[in-house]
Amino acid sequence: MAGIGFVGLGTMGTPMAANLVRAGHTVRGFDTLATARAAAAARGIAVAPSLAEAMRGAEAAVTMLPDTPDVEAVVAGPGGLLELLAPGALLIDCSSIAPAAARRLANEAAGRGIAMLDAPVTGGPGGAEAGTLAIMVGGEIEAYARAEPVLRAMGRPRRMGPPGAGQATKLCNQLVVAQHLIAVAEAIGMARGQGLDPNAVLEVLAGGAARSWLMETFGKRMAIDDPAPAFRMALMLKDLRLALEAGFEAGVPLPATALASSLMLAQAAAGEGGLGHHAVIRAYERLAGRVPAAGGGEGG
Amino acid sequence: MAGIGFVGLGTMGTPMAANLVRAGHTVRGFDTLATARAAAAARGIAVAPSLAEAMRGAEAAVTMLPDTPDVEAVVAGPGGLLELLAPGALLIDCSSIAPAAARRLANEAAGRGIAMLDAPVTGGPGGAEAGTLAIMVGGEIEAYARAEPVLRAMGRPRRMGPPGAGQATKLCNQLVVAQHLIAVAEAIGMARGQGLDPNAVLEVLAGGAARSWLMETFGKRMAIDDPAPAFRMALMLKDLRLALEAGFEAGVPLPATALASSLMLAQAAAGEGGLGHHAVIRAYERLAGRVPAAGGGEGG
Repeated sequence: MAGIGFVGLGTMGTPMAANLVRAGHTVRGFDTLATARAAAAARGIAVAPSLAEAMRGAEAAVTMLPDTPDVEAVVAGPGGLLELLAPGALLIDCSSIAPAAARRLANEAAGRGIAMLDAPVTGGPGGAEAGTLAIMVGGEIEAYARAEPVLRAMGRPRRMGPPGAGQATKLCNQLVVAQHLIAVAEAIGMARGQGLDPNAVLEVLAGGAARSWLMETFGKRMAIDDPAPAFRMALMLKDLRLALEAGFEAGVPLPATALASSLMLAQAAAGEGGLGHHAVIRAYERLAGRVPAAGGGEGG
Repeated sequence: MAGIGFVGLGTMGTPMAANLVRAGHTVRGFDTLATARAAAAARGIAVAPSLAEAMRGAEAAVTMLPDTPDVEAVVAGPGGLLELLAPGALLIDCSSIAPAAARRLANEAAGRGIAMLDAPVTGGPGGAEAGTLAIMVGGEIEAYARAEPVLRAMGRPRRMGPPGAGQATKLCNQLVVAQHLIAVAEAIGMARGQGLDPNAVLEVLAGGAARSWLMETFGKRMAIDDPAPAFRMALMLKDLRLALEAGFEAGVPLPATALASSLMLAQAAAGEGGLGHHAVIRAYERLAGRVPAAGGGEGG
């Protein structure tokens, strides 16, 4: 696409923007942090000194921001994308935000002749670098068709339905991820309580009906209490909060999601919200009256 | 092995005994139900009219029974295996029972010169037929070495530790399985509440970090509410009860396992304990104020 303005040059946004450049799109990136802009420039992404500069003449904008209020401000706030983009432009929000907010913003954008898609991703920094992110898209069919070349440069997109459907799918994903981590934590707790080697137990479980991607990927790190950040627990808590809010709005009881969020909140309350989400094992250590190993010092 | 007495010719026991025959072992089977004996005989397994006959001259006994009291009665009750087997014999219990009971029985057996292994399995009737069951074994190293040829004829054994370690590992497996089913149920509930196609959502989730064996194997059946038995919920409830009991004994909190068991108990209380464990989706339908589809008539 001739001009894409990319907003949010963080751990995820930078490699995603780099993949757009690699696919031949003309990209201009922006982030409020000068350090983020410099890091992106060092990776060959043209950066702009302001949001307005990044959007000058852009046919499309891509946003990759932390939370709902950030997206609301950048899209619909004063001097935001709905003012900066021309009618006919495409607005692709890859952030993970509330489905209701995504629907509201898409509606507001449509009122200005701008087609907005919600397109949250899963796959982490590794998937962002490799261009293999799973991208869950909500929006009108025609807008999705126009956006597909942009989305394909960053991963594997799939349209899930009208505006908000991408965000809703992401929340389904995250509530399952959280519960899988809890399941691994309880298996490790039971293994320890019964005098078994947790690593040996996880190996056996990963060979059968108890297998999960989370167990395969984080099981050993949980068993040895290696809490170094992977996906930050604070971000998982944001997603669980959005899932529970969406559950309230739709009247859908989510008891296990609520329990998982409580255990992760307890972990964050212990000053460890900055650790990886798999560090919820430490909440179980405390529940069982053990003091988790030191070395989780990155938390806060 | 020259003589193996096999007790419990049910859905699992019959194919396991047939695999022992196929591997060249001399097997004599017994079940209290005449219909089960007849069905096993029709598959080429020699059957005996009594437990005592099945054990005459046996070097080893294999038991595959429903629950802890069944195993206690057959092993340690009057006229049971500890009376029937000669000192030096091997006793392999493939049932899923309480780890504490397995330790107690192994101790009692050792007092009579009989080496007892707990060797519960996972993999279902399909794994039993194919001889690919994962077998989690607790017991002394020497007894495990003697039992290995017998175990290998039925699946892939792994020694997890001393007596009880096999049962404890099985409980770790089952509490993860139960939580994975709950996670799928909540993802489907969220998908429905947000107006998404649950099947499409599960397809996306199965391609990423939310993937699990249970989701891949039972996700679609849960999304269309096909509750036909696979692994019976009543048996899953037994395993969860054993897991929670073991948690109490060892002082290990298992909040998510407790929640999963409550949801499955609610499902059983609705008269549906005879359905497959994945039918817990119906408990969520009721929680969300919907009446599950008809056709779960096998329950009871």
